[in-house]
Amino acid sequence: MKPVRPSPRPAPAARDREQCLALDRADRLAPLREQFALPPGLIYLDGNSLGALPTATTGRVAQTLRDEWGNGLIGSWNAADWIGMPRRIGDKIARLVGAAPGELLVADSTSVNLYKALSAAIAIVNPAGSTRTLIVSEHDNFPTDLYIAESLARQHGLEPRLVDAAAIESVLDERSAVLMLTEVNYRTGALHDMDALTRAAHEVGALAVWDLSHSAGALPVDLHRAGADFAVGCGYKYLNGGPGAPAFVWVHPRHAERFRQPLSGWMGHAAPFEFAPGYRPAAGIARYLCGTPPIVAMAALECGVDTLLAAEPFGGVAALRRKSLALSELFIELVAARCAGHGLELVTPRDPARRGSQVCLSRADGGYAIVQALIARGVVGDFRVPDILRFGFAPLYVRFADVWDAVEQLRDVLASRAWQRPEFAQRNLVT
Amino acid sequence: MKPVRPSPRPAPAARDREQCLALDRADRLAPLREQFALPPGLIYLDGNSLGALPTATTGRVAQTLRDEWGNGLIGSWNAADWIGMPRRIGDKIARLVGAAPGELLVADSTSVNLYKALSAAIAIVNPAGSTRTLIVSEHDNFPTDLYIAESLARQHGLEPRLVDAAAIESVLDERSAVLMLTEVNYRTGALHDMDALTRAAHEVGALAVWDLSHSAGALPVDLHRAGADFAVGCGYKYLNGGPGAPAFVWVHPRHAERFRQPLSGWMGHAAPFEFAPGYRPAAGIARYLCGTPPIVAMAALECGVDTLLAAEPFGGVAALRRKSLALSELFIELVAARCAGHGLELVTPRDPARRGSQVCLSRADGGYAIVQALIARGVVGDFRVPDILRFGFAPLYVRFADVWDAVEQLRDVLASRAWQRPEFAQRNLVT
Repeated sequence: MKPVRPSPRPAPAARDREQCLALDRADRLAPLREQFALPPGLIYLDGNSLGALPTATTGRVAQTLRDEWGNGLIGSWNAADWIGMPRRIGDKIARLVGAAPGELLVADSTSVNLYKALSAAIAIVNPAGSTRTLIVSEHDNFPTDLYIAESLARQHGLEPRLVDAAAIESVLDERSAVLMLTEVNYRTGALHDMDALTRAAHEVGALAVWDLSHSAGALPVDLHRAGADFAVGCGYKYLNGGPGAPAFVWVHPRHAERFRQPLSGWMGHAAPFEFAPGYRPAAGIARYLCGTPPIVAMAALECGVDTLLAAEPFGGVAALRRKSLALSELFIELVAARCAGHGLELVTPRDPARRGSQVCLSRADGGYAIVQALIARGVVGDFRVPDILRFGFAPLYVRFADVWDAVEQLRDVLASRAWQRPEFAQRNLVT
Repeated sequence: MKPVRPSPRPAPAARDREQCLALDRADRLAPLREQFALPPGLIYLDGNSLGALPTATTGRVAQTLRDEWGNGLIGSWNAADWIGMPRRIGDKIARLVGAAPGELLVADSTSVNLYKALSAAIAIVNPAGSTRTLIVSEHDNFPTDLYIAESLARQHGLEPRLVDAAAIESVLDERSAVLMLTEVNYRTGALHDMDALTRAAHEVGALAVWDLSHSAGALPVDLHRAGADFAVGCGYKYLNGGPGAPAFVWVHPRHAERFRQPLSGWMGHAAPFEFAPGYRPAAGIARYLCGTPPIVAMAALECGVDTLLAAEPFGGVAALRRKSLALSELFIELVAARCAGHGLELVTPRDPARRGSQVCLSRADGGYAIVQALIARGVVGDFRVPDILRFGFAPLYVRFADVWDAVEQLRDVLASRAWQRPEFAQRNLVT
């Protein structure tokens, strides 16, 4: 971690609010913001935790409730194609992550999907008597990933091997069974090189399982180019699917037919409505379904995913990535220029190619209270223990002027010591 | 299975539609039907598959979307107590199934919860080297239960032992690890004696895991009186939570702290927002949480559960049970009296004490088409392979006159052979 310093460039991309407004006027993606029902005046820099509400969602969910459930009742499984939703929405998400139609499925939570994917990966590379006993991951990976890996390691007599991000390649060896990583680190915003790390895993005979929770919808992912083996991801961050939205799971076609995943619920059966007593896995990705899909939540998720597909005529995820980096670059530069001397350090990599769509700062003390003080002023980021101030730049709805305003509020909160007011010290249940 | 014959009583409880209407007028529970947005004229006898839409749900979900998600955004985890929903709704469901507050949790799907509960039960009774290697269940149990048991049996070197309902007690012995049953059989409507079977399992040293999918909200369940060890159940049948609603899981307090369940996601951690790399299970039932709870779906589920709690001033589940049996009894009697000679057989036990809230008929041929013909006339039941016509009597909204009308339509479909029209032979994706 290094103090936030001005970039090598002579000046930020914008030196004042007017220039930021000019950047917004020139932004071809700007109209995509109209897809969201954001509260007026709020600067929402937490789309990396919970995406914003699309304007289409309320109507679509009401239709699902009133017309499909209320009037169509049980018949809507056929008539409204509820039964097809996990694959239909999966096909849409596939377009965002370099997967082919029919390869990706919406189901359950990220944690549950990781359990399925990691179980299958272990089954492939860790047959009885194998000496491949390590699940390699980053010490700082999102905890749920580590907890699921810990559970499966215990179950299969394996061992988690958790290292710093920089050490991952060097610890991969012939004892490695699976490399399991989140492409963008939730706490630092650092972006892994999926292609290189997948290759490194394959070179030692391990499989690569990727969690795309902080990348799907925010930056270009190409699962096939990387040759990844399994992937999971979250529906409620950049995909704007709503709180606790269903997650997704992808399996490379070379593995999809090979192994059962242990959560062998009836919806993943080859013929669920035959109600046969013995489990026979469905072909391909469909076996990664488990219980009955949550239709209302899926309807909301589809609206969220559609907000990203709406960017396709404007250059799609690649264009979103360019804007995301322009926003985060501007934020870093403005913080360096305007908040100097307040003890902030940049946690996120300074190199744009190595960061996701968020910028994390740290401060020796007061991080939590500073975030609370900003929230009280309508600038919503979040805090992650022990000392991280986290700001996400969802390119579909964050504006350059928002970046300016957020930094100005941050500067003022620091300069005025407003964050030291006692009400900002009080911890919430969820941070 | 026996032909549907008139009961020993001299005559049905109602001999004509007028008498049914009189029964409805005398029904103290009748006003509870106003809680639902049922399509006018429709007779919905499939609440055992998908409960009806409560009128409160659309507004409540819209509020969750617009106010809580749209305006409150990430802050609603605290401000709208999203984080508390799995336990709050769990406490409400607990009142329906004889569990105490804090013992029951809403999470994931029934299949996923069964995986958690059955894993923990196996861990308790099947330590290394144990000769308790059988998971005993009913051959005709709902397939997802059998598939999950099959998966866990393979994982732990156990063996599913599937028998007919009548043989369950006799096969329980010192090799039995777990007795896993659905209290009401989805295909026959037969009701197990939970108290007696749990006792029988315990007498041989096995644990009892109950699936309450077809009983919660339809008939009195008393998990503590039965001394059950684990229970799971469905949110979208009698609980009216909407298609694919989250499910629930209950663990007897004597087991809750003892074992980890394998789906160790971050929301089941003792301190999820410490983001510690090592898993430390939360106290009690909270460790049965896995990923982030699906808030929109939970809001809908809570409205559904509330429709059952609204029956508490009218006698609660016991009163619902009395009405349910009066409805199913009337249906059986009317079918016997008015559809005789059409080859229908009664699959559901004739003894009311041995049946759930549904009545299943079978017929040598035409079952599927007969159900389709009834649906075309606005009488919605469903068909289950190979030959079951299934009619559910959700006591919150089914009326005695509905039973009369349904039987009259059934009689006419059979007498007129309307079901033989080709359009009724065409199979839907979901039956």
